[in-house]
Amino acid sequence: MPQSDGVLVLPVVGIGEVVPGTDLARLIAGAVAPAVPDQPALLAGDVVVVTQKIVSKAEGKLVPVDHADAGAKLALVEQESVRILRRRGDLVITETRHGFVCANAGVDLSNVADGTAALLPEDPDRSARAIRAGLRNALGVDVGVIVSDTFGRAWRRGVTDVAIGCAGVAAVLDLKGTNDAGGRELVATEICVADEIASAAELVMGKDRGIPVAIVRGVPPAWFRPASVRAEIIRPPDEDLFR
Amino acid sequence: MPQSDGVLVLPVVGIGEVVPGTDLARLIAGAVAPAVPDQPALLAGDVVVVTQKIVSKAEGKLVPVDHADAGAKLALVEQESVRILRRRGDLVITETRHGFVCANAGVDLSNVADGTAALLPEDPDRSARAIRAGLRNALGVDVGVIVSDTFGRAWRRGVTDVAIGCAGVAAVLDLKGTNDAGGRELVATEICVADEIASAAELVMGKDRGIPVAIVRGVPPAWFRPASVRAEIIRPPDEDLFR
Repeated sequence: MPQSDGVLVLPVVGIGEVVPGTDLARLIAGAVAPAVPDQPALLAGDVVVVTQKIVSKAEGKLVPVDHADAGAKLALVEQESVRILRRRGDLVITETRHGFVCANAGVDLSNVADGTAALLPEDPDRSARAIRAGLRNALGVDVGVIVSDTFGRAWRRGVTDVAIGCAGVAAVLDLKGTNDAGGRELVATEICVADEIASAAELVMGKDRGIPVAIVRGVPPAWFRPASVRAEIIRPPDEDLFR
Repeated sequence: MPQSDGVLVLPVVGIGEVVPGTDLARLIAGAVAPAVPDQPALLAGDVVVVTQKIVSKAEGKLVPVDHADAGAKLALVEQESVRILRRRGDLVITETRHGFVCANAGVDLSNVADGTAALLPEDPDRSARAIRAGLRNALGVDVGVIVSDTFGRAWRRGVTDVAIGCAGVAAVLDLKGTNDAGGRELVATEICVADEIASAAELVMGKDRGIPVAIVRGVPPAWFRPASVRAEIIRPPDEDLFR
């Protein structure tokens, strides 16, 4: 693989209000079109990272819920889950119908209107493909798209951003058959580059800054290919040691 | 928090051979000194990410092991562990004495000489502090330092890079008391920025490219403070739902 010249992570500012029915690709294209001052133009080979929250809003995955009613919130979480893994106090770790294991089935109460919760997109890979196709139509550039969300982890404190959907850029990069610098075959060969890109994007988004889109520029051209979080990242229960 | 102008992730090339006793700070400083052509000079406010492998090598954490002897490798993993969480075939998930939960207790057989394994550093936070102090002495700049390693995760396929030690830059950023864009208090407030920075760095390192050091430039100034992976990221067993 050629020497990388570096990766640049750029926040996309000026993304306006997103409501059910908003055409996200068009909204993003408007913000990163070459004519927009003080903003990077989108280039072929960029990866566009879009947070789950605006994807869910655009897709109308909003439901009414009383933020102060713990019972109603729990019922919503259970409705969005196929399996409850653990409970402790207010914290419920569940498996969603997509196969994601996360807190509260990904039900999101922040950065949405009071009395409303945002559910995960129906099919985040499909959401990513639609944004990718829309950006190509609007701007004529081929980019990768990742839909990101914020998940906790077992064993480690703090949350990080991960990919819940992707299009046009690898979710897991398989280096099997590749050698290390000493010529020995690599052992840990499956790198989840989509999660790493989502984490890199979060560095410029920030939950308190409210930037829902970032551009990650400079990842190797070989990473661009048809891809899917569901097919590549979701670990089936029978392969999983912690469910 | 002020608007970010973007984060730049730069590979540091030209890091030479690391052997027990190598002064890593001096080696890195030599590679990123202002006089080195075609290489970025290190700036105050950068985060320097250093892979565990060269830290372990420099600290002499190398032990002889026959790479073809599964029994010997397993004995080494057990010796490095305080608790075995799961076993399946060759895969052993253990808790190290540092409190990390990972495959094979972090024992590393790739990119080391045949007949040798690299163990985790004794105290990766201390390793990070030493590199940070050495870079300040050599170059007069205050930087954050993260020692990174490659871990698998429950529920998700593929490995990502995470922080196992840090100095001068937050491990977990606590946004408690901060509001979202709509003025509601944030719920998921503890962001593991050190893991996100480690993941961003991996995008330019690559296991097949053999680049052991990267610079992450442009993270918010507020993130720079005394910090520790052990104190901030390691989740104590009694707080953990998956052990």
